[in-house]
Order: sequence, then C-alpha cells, then structure tokens
Amino acid sequence: MIDVYSWATPNGHKVHIMLAECGLPYRAHPVNIGAGDQFKPEFLAISPNNKIPAIVDPDGPDGEPISLFESGAILLYLAGKTGRFLPSTVRGRYETLEWLMFQMGGVGPMLGQAHHFRIYAPEKLPYAIDRYTNEAKRLYGVMDKRLAKSKYIAGNEYTIADIAIFPWLRSWKNQGIDWADYPHLKGWFDEIAARPAVQRGVEVLADLRKPLVDSQARDVLFGKQQYERR
Amino acid sequence: MIDVYSWATPNGHKVHIMLAECGLPYRAHPVNIGAGDQFKPEFLAISPNNKIPAIVDPDGPDGEPISLFESGAILLYLAGKTGRFLPSTVRGRYETLEWLMFQMGGVGPMLGQAHHFRIYAPEKLPYAIDRYTNEAKRLYGVMDKRLAKSKYIAGNEYTIADIAIFPWLRSWKNQGIDWADYPHLKGWFDEIAARPAVQRGVEVLADLRKPLVDSQARDVLFGKQQYERR
Ligand SMILES: N[C@@H](CCC(=O)N[C@@H](CS)C(=O)NCC(=O)O)C(=O)O
Ligand SMILES: N[C@@H](CCC(=O)N[C@@H](CS)C(=O)NCC(=O)O)C(=O)O
Repeated sequence: MIDVYSWATPNGHKVHIMLAECGLPYRAHPVNIGAGDQFKPEFLAISPNNKIPAIVDPDGPDGEPISLFESGAILLYLAGKTGRFLPSTVRGRYETLEWLMFQMGGVGPMLGQAHHFRIYAPEKLPYAIDRYTNEAKRLYGVMDKRLAKSKYIAGNEYTIADIAIFPWLRSWKNQGIDWADYPHLKGWFDEIAARPAVQRGVEVLADLRKPLVDSQARDVLFGKQQYERR
Repeated sequence: MIDVYSWATPNGHKVHIMLAECGLPYRAHPVNIGAGDQFKPEFLAISPNNKIPAIVDPDGPDGEPISLFESGAILLYLAGKTGRFLPSTVRGRYETLEWLMFQMGGVGPMLGQAHHFRIYAPEKLPYAIDRYTNEAKRLYGVMDKRLAKSKYIAGNEYTIADIAIFPWLRSWKNQGIDWADYPHLKGWFDEIAARPAVQRGVEVLADLRKPLVDSQARDVLFGKQQYERR
C-alpha cells in the first residue's frame, strides 16, 4: 500500500485526488507543516526540500520500493503506474506536460504568493498585493482562454494537469478573483468539483488542518525558524 | 531544424544549453520580453502563457510538427528526442523528474521573486526582500546538502535537472548569496560553468538583452500593461 506524507493544502490535495481517481489504496500520514514536522529528519530523508507531499510506494519500479517528492513528479509517477489520466499518444503526453509545468511553475507558486501577501503576511504591502493579485488574474485569464476552445486544460481528456490545477483554484476568494470574468474556467471548475474522487480527495486530512492564523504556525512557515533550522 | 522563440534569461538559457549539449541544429528567434513581444498573437499561438521559451520542431512525433512551451516540458521533449541527459533507468528518470520539478516550482519562481524585489521593483520593501532572500538561501542550502552526497543534482549523471538549475544560479549576486556558505553547490556550479556547451548556450541572444533598467521595459514586465492586454 502506498504511504502518503502530506497535509490538506493544494499540493497535498493533488496527490490525494489522483490516488482517489485511480482507486489506489493508500495510507495518509499527516505532516503538520504549521508545527514544523517538515523539518524532521525522517521526513527530510524522503523530501529534502522540506515540503509536502511525498510518497513511498513499496511496489515501485522492478518491484523495489521508491520514494518521491514534488507533486508534479508524484502525479507523473502515479499516471505511469496506473496508465490513467495521461493521454496515450506521445503528442497528448507532451501537451499534458506543458500544462502540468504551467501549474508547477506558475499557478502554484504565484497563487501561493497571492495567498501570502493578501492573507498571511503580518504587514499589508499594497505593491506586493497588487503584483500577485494581477498575476492571479493573468493566470486565470490564460486558463479561461484555453478552456474556451478545449474541454480540459490539456485537450479533450481529463488529465493530471487538471488534477494539479484544480485544488489551487478552490481558494479563488483569497486570490481576489471574480468568477464572472472567467466563464469557461468556471464551467471547468464546477465540473471537476463535482467528481466524486475529487470530493473525497479534498477531504483527506482536512479535519487536522487548523487555519493558519496562530502566530506559532506563522513563525514556522514564514518566519526566521525556517532558515535557522538548516 | 528546430525553431526556438526565446530571450537571454534563465528560462531561455536552459533550452539553449540543452540544444547545444545535444548538438541539435536550431534557429533562435528573439522575443523581446522587455518590448512586449510575448503578447503578439503569433507568439501566443505557441506560448499561451506569454512567456519564453517556446520551440517548434518540424520533425515531431510521427514526423509531424510540434510546438511546445514551458521550459521543463521542452527539456523533457528534447531529452526524449535525443535520448540524452535523462537516465535510462525508470528509477533514474523519476529522480531527475523530482529535481526538475523542484527547479520549476521552487528555484525558478522563488529566485525570480528575489530578483524582482531586490533589484527591479520600484519600491524597496524590506519584508519582501527578506522573504525571498531567505528563501533563496534555503533553496541553496537544500541543493548544497544534496550535492554533498551526489555528484549531480539527480544522481551520478549530468541531466536536464542540472541544465534547468544552472542558469538561475548565475545570478547569485542578485539573490544575496555568499558562495562560501555552499561549498558543494559551488563545486558543482563551477564544473557545469566550464562545459563548452553551457558556455555557448548562455551566449545565445545575449547581445540583444539590454539590462532591464529602462522604465518602459519595467512597465511591460511588471506594470499594468501585462494585465490590460488580455
Ligand atoms: N513544488 C512543490 C511545492 C510543495 C509545497 O509548497 N508544499 C507546501 C504546502 S502546499 C509545504 O509543504 N510548505 C511547508 C514549508 O515550505 O515549510 C510541490 O509541488 O510538491
Ligand atoms: N515556467 C516558465 C517560466 C517562463 C518565464 O518566466 N519566462 C520569462 C523570462 S525568464 C518571461 O518570458 N517573462 C515575460 C512575461 O512574463 O511577460 C518556464 O519555465 O518556461
């Protein structure tokens, strides 16, 4: 059975959704990133960048165990293992990779910065808030245009690129987004949100996640502690 | 011959280096992102996220042309096309993917924010400068630890993960980095920098890139224009 080391945040949800979509049995182990669990040596041994999610599959390539970090790599691994949610044509695979990379390099990090400066940062900095709110709007615009002519983000099939993007868009309110501006993306969002596996995936470990308001968690995640620990 | 639409920035360099390493013939077409070329319809048709790099390979899968955006997808495509710089074992491939994703989701976006707030932003915001300088140091620390026990970032072979990371570290000065703190990473950096293909790659289109100091370029890249264009 696959072991998942994770937390109920967008990058964790991706993997929980993928596992639910594939019907793979797994055990979810909470890594409380607000309490600093991501810096424990056992976790760093499988996730050297001190971030969730990570997995250990006892039945990896050649039947030997494998551990993986980085949600994009985990999604590709699980797609490779099951043959699901990655097109079977070479061309379709590269199209999926493009949009998966767009999520990994753009949607994730930039919406993450929008959350930080709009919600979590102790100072309200208008320049930074504007920068990332504008970037959020730009990214939503790119996806809306794409979905005006394509049923799913990477083409006509539901893929790991959709699975990677969806959890980030659940926090649209924290990103300053008005859905009225993105009708095609909204239609896609509602369709994905209605999938039973997606609904199960986003609930995994969710009851453990306290809102990140207490100052100790803030210190662990955004404060000096991060940098003093290495 | 492959057409590359690009600019002499870290994400462009990755592809120029990979093409040089593989000895693939190509034509580089400048996309002046300081002048707004990334918003031209011809470019958006191949790169819907209005970012360099993008490529068009007339000899794609099944001998039909293919266009690709997102540097991580392009590196994987070129590795697949040539069989170079991606390990031949399944396990080695996933290890390379992990670190490629680490570059795409961490090193690129976060060092990019460090450049922005430390160098380009019109306001000097100590909170944001500290946030991204600390994150730069954390990322360099993660890589230094990894390279203490591994010759290259993804293992014992030079791979596209090294090619993806290297160009970002050339701007270490703008990231507030002191190499003395990262001896293993520095050894790796010097070795990669000495590779002839890397030296050729970083020079591609380089004479066209004016420093991003003029206020018009700044407006195009960081100002309102980006968001008014969609
Ligand atoms: N590029 C990584 C990002 C993972 C990430 O940012 N994880 C966050 C939670 S969503 C985390 O673990 N943060 C804890 C920390 O940075 O200390 C991925 O996609 O897996
Ligand atoms: N995740 C993308 C990022 C590409 C990127 O950020 N490109 C920058 C130059 S390094 C760009 O074209 N910026 C122009 C713009 O954002 O308008 C990739 O790796 O290809």
